[in-house]
Amino acid sequence: MSIESQNRAILLACCPDQKGLVAKLSQFIYEHQGNIVDSDQHTDHEAGVFATRIEWELDGFGIAADAIHSRLAPLAASLQLQWTLHLRPKETPIAVFVSRQDHCLIDLLARQRSGDFGGRIALIVSNHRELAPIAAQFGVPFFYFPISAEIKAQQERDTLKLLKEHRIELVVLAKYMQVLSQDFLTALPPVINIHHSFLPAFPGASPYQRAFARGVKLIGATAHYVTQDLDEGPIIEQDVSRVSHRDAVADMIRRGKDLEKIVLARAVYLHLQSRVLVYHNKTIVFD
Amino acid sequence: MSIESQNRAILLACCPDQKGLVAKLSQFIYEHQGNIVDSDQHTDHEAGVFATRIEWELDGFGIAADAIHSRLAPLAASLQLQWTLHLRPKETPIAVFVSRQDHCLIDLLARQRSGDFGGRIALIVSNHRELAPIAAQFGVPFFYFPISAEIKAQQERDTLKLLKEHRIELVVLAKYMQVLSQDFLTALPPVINIHHSFLPAFPGASPYQRAFARGVKLIGATAHYVTQDLDEGPIIEQDVSRVSHRDAVADMIRRGKDLEKIVLARAVYLHLQSRVLVYHNKTIVFD
Amino acid sequence: MSIESQNRAILLACCPDQKGLVAKLSQFIYEHQGNIVDSDQHTDHEAGVFATRIEWELDGFGIAADAIHSRLAPLAASLQLQWTLHLRPKETPIAVFVSRQDHCLIDLLARQRSGDFGGRIALIVSNHRELAPIAAQFGVPFFYFPISAEIKAQQERDTLKLLKEHRIELVVLAKYMQVLSQDFLTALPPVINIHHSFLPAFPGASPYQRAFARGVKLIGATAHYVTQDLDEGPIIEQDVSRVSHRDAVADMIRRGKDLEKIVLARAVYLHLQSRVLVYHNKTIVFD
Amino acid sequence: MSIESQNRAILLACCPDQKGLVAKLSQFIYEHQGNIVDSDQHTDHEAGVFATRIEWELDGFGIAADAIHSRLAPLAASLQLQWTLHLRPKETPIAVFVSRQDHCLIDLLARQRSGDFGGRIALIVSNHRELAPIAAQFGVPFFYFPISAEIKAQQERDTLKLLKEHRIELVVLAKYMQVLSQDFLTALPPVINIHHSFLPAFPGASPYQRAFARGVKLIGATAHYVTQDLDEGPIIEQDVSRVSHRDAVADMIRRGKDLEKIVLARAVYLHLQSRVLVYHNKTIVFD
Repeated sequence: MSIESQNRAILLACCPDQKGLVAKLSQFIYEHQGNIVDSDQHTDHEAGVFATRIEWELDGFGIAADAIHSRLAPLAASLQLQWTLHLRPKETPIAVFVSRQDHCLIDLLARQRSGDFGGRIALIVSNHRELAPIAAQFGVPFFYFPISAEIKAQQERDTLKLLKEHRIELVVLAKYMQVLSQDFLTALPPVINIHHSFLPAFPGASPYQRAFARGVKLIGATAHYVTQDLDEGPIIEQDVSRVSHRDAVADMIRRGKDLEKIVLARAVYLHLQSRVLVYHNKTIVFD
Repeated sequence: MSIESQNRAILLACCPDQKGLVAKLSQFIYEHQGNIVDSDQHTDHEAGVFATRIEWELDGFGIAADAIHSRLAPLAASLQLQWTLHLRPKETPIAVFVSRQDHCLIDLLARQRSGDFGGRIALIVSNHRELAPIAAQFGVPFFYFPISAEIKAQQERDTLKLLKEHRIELVVLAKYMQVLSQDFLTALPPVINIHHSFLPAFPGASPYQRAFARGVKLIGATAHYVTQDLDEGPIIEQDVSRVSHRDAVADMIRRGKDLEKIVLARAVYLHLQSRVLVYHNKTIVFD
Repeated sequence: MSIESQNRAILLACCPDQKGLVAKLSQFIYEHQGNIVDSDQHTDHEAGVFATRIEWELDGFGIAADAIHSRLAPLAASLQLQWTLHLRPKETPIAVFVSRQDHCLIDLLARQRSGDFGGRIALIVSNHRELAPIAAQFGVPFFYFPISAEIKAQQERDTLKLLKEHRIELVVLAKYMQVLSQDFLTALPPVINIHHSFLPAFPGASPYQRAFARGVKLIGATAHYVTQDLDEGPIIEQDVSRVSHRDAVADMIRRGKDLEKIVLARAVYLHLQSRVLVYHNKTIVFD
Repeated sequence: MSIESQNRAILLACCPDQKGLVAKLSQFIYEHQGNIVDSDQHTDHEAGVFATRIEWELDGFGIAADAIHSRLAPLAASLQLQWTLHLRPKETPIAVFVSRQDHCLIDLLARQRSGDFGGRIALIVSNHRELAPIAAQFGVPFFYFPISAEIKAQQERDTLKLLKEHRIELVVLAKYMQVLSQDFLTALPPVINIHHSFLPAFPGASPYQRAFARGVKLIGATAHYVTQDLDEGPIIEQDVSRVSHRDAVADMIRRGKDLEKIVLARAVYLHLQSRVLVYHNKTIVFD
């Protein structure tokens, strides 16, 4: 699962289950002298869906990188494939949306600095000014878009324009405490959110307070793609941490921050490595 | 936390927070030559509740074991203490209720056989005949009470009579797929249930099917005391296990069984060790 | 990962990395009308090793089950494949070796009873009589082979004869406190052992005592294939459990038993599902 | 376990086990009108050691904060107590030692920024220049002390002088790749180190490479106090993360960084909250 500097192509695909899928896809790569370095197939028998992730080396591959898509298209069509093709190395341009909490943002910026990330945080958008110094500190442009009911639509149009100018391909909600309108969401590239509970337990607001009141022995965090139904999008990654009666709500929040930043970072990493396939409102994570 | 063979007394108590609680309780024990071997205090500042568990040696203690309760009562009253006193060693008589699934039952019986348990399974009650051979195998009396809407009230009365005859002090629902009526529940000693999900996610029926449909990355199990509100009683113990897209519902059920039996056994053990205090519909586990 | 009742073939294989491996293997299956239901490939770039697990349906497959091996052999030879072929459904005959501790044995027997196992415990071998009643209870033949320095060689020959008579294909050391001689080990089918520590920490005897003395915050258990070098064989599965200063050695042992039985059972299950490939003294677990 | 802003005193103590310890200590606090808010006692029966942590409110307490130590001393002496007294609120001045890796340093600085820390990073010491920009970014003084065999003794003397000037009370080795000389260590305040393995597995250099070669299924990290015996000091906190054959050494290093930063931060937090007591080369963590 490491970040490779070599030239690679990755096919993420699913289709109705049928015989010969692995043979046909691997044959296509082999007949053009491609060397498969990682390959994983899964059949969801209940749904009748075949899913695969195939990664192969581009060095020595008989088709130019920018021609692979068109050359693969006829085979894909014959198999009724829903597919995306990803070329490596690549630094996916990312926009991070934040409000006032800094732990997820700093963690993402620190990973980018370490080179452990596989993407590039091109800009930060916020409805508050508090985190502008963090952005400045790490040298990333910060855009302040205050939000109120009257100007929300305008703010979303302005944000969309900005993301297009920067060719943003992934939006990360790093504790962004605003609901995205349906129109906005439709126009955005994929959006990953971190929810501070173990979904589907405690959806919505104040999950730690509710976890404390319920006396749970574990708290969790969930990273998911954002869809129209708040807190109902496909789950990419989850984790939990043990708590006890000794943990007040403030302690749960403090412990939860560690969960949130680690779980969000893992989900972003998996997405950037083209390891996440979505179907039927859930994910296959080829890890 | 080990099972000690020495003679011990354990006080589990809570009361409104006030100064001098630890001093007064420990002084009572010290002035009668008691040696405290384990002691834990916790103050829930939000609720204004002080809670404690104190364990001391009875060898050399200046009050006879059967007189401790009456001698402690005046101090307890002056502190507005809600308290229970537990004497060791003791083999708490337990009734295990089961339906058709055997994994939790066998696990509990195996622990009893190993001596790792701290209680004695006096009898097994079931609404099905399937697990009678397991009971016979481990030499524990098995009582078959078939249930239908017409005879449920009678069955509960008969069960209650049986439990009283055997002086049962704890009921364990080890995958017992019946709802207890409110009257029955009120008449029973403490009841511990295992729910096959990470409550409050997926309360009610078929949690694994719903976890699969939702695409969660972790499944869980929850052991809790049973109250009138199904799946809403005080949580004693929880744990989770990682799953992936490779796990079909049948796999989740299989993995879940391991979680269920371990989490239930831990909860029963903690109860039998007098380590669980209930207040405000949640638990303090002094572990 | 579920236990399927359908007819399946599973190929577990590794070879020097080269182009076209996936294509050639999947083409072989496809050209005989096989439907691949699960397939996973991995390349260890450091070692230059390609490894795969391919599972396909036998219903409709153009080669009879008992002819697959010979028909696949030429292709396998041309690819320098080290391979094993497994046909399903199958109840692998297993011998469980025990000494005096019962928790792993009862857990394995209970899984077999539940049908969650994928194998059949054909017999139990012990150097002590203590667990004979457990074997009787679950209706499995129990063979008592006392061991002393003088008769160890004879005991091993007798045991080997017994295993051959029962066509045993897997030996599980479920807390068997004897070292196997090199000759014995060489003559045995695969042997899985459970070590009561997180290897390579605390190899050898009394790991819980040493963990307690060292003040570790986690204890572990490790299931591994047995090789000539004690506690150095390929690791199949590991897990840990949190401990604290409140846990005396006896508590660590009690908590450790839960780890041991779960980790051993997972390893046996993975082996029986033909999901474990060994190379370079370590495993690839295709889960 | 939350960071309280109220005025508090905390007693951390151990002594030979004897009757009346809890009574005498709590009586001392009560007779001066102190309100105990958190109290925990533990007896290590094997070692015959009693240990306790008592936290009480200073508001209304009958002894001035700066006189508590002298007033408590006679009782402590009569009980043969080894004890430390801690007053809150306090911002313990910390020196962080680093080499080239930034993940632990940034994480600690980010926690300090969030106020989730309980201490104050007064300065950063490094034997390399690489992390000076991080220090500048967060506004913390950075001191560069290059090390070679010839000047190591001088460098340690200079560092010691610096720490004294800043009244440093805790040194955190945040991936500091230098061995501290015995004289240096003796002169330092408590030193917490993060080791990138699950000690005692893989002590010394290159643990991830060795974990990969051994084929372990879990990697770990260990935070411990530094003593003369490298990697043998009292363990404060440990955690593990699951890995598989898909993880190359580079992936283990990447995953390990998350473990390292979280485990180190937890250990530092526990120390700063006066929750760690050391005896017999191991810790009691009163959490």
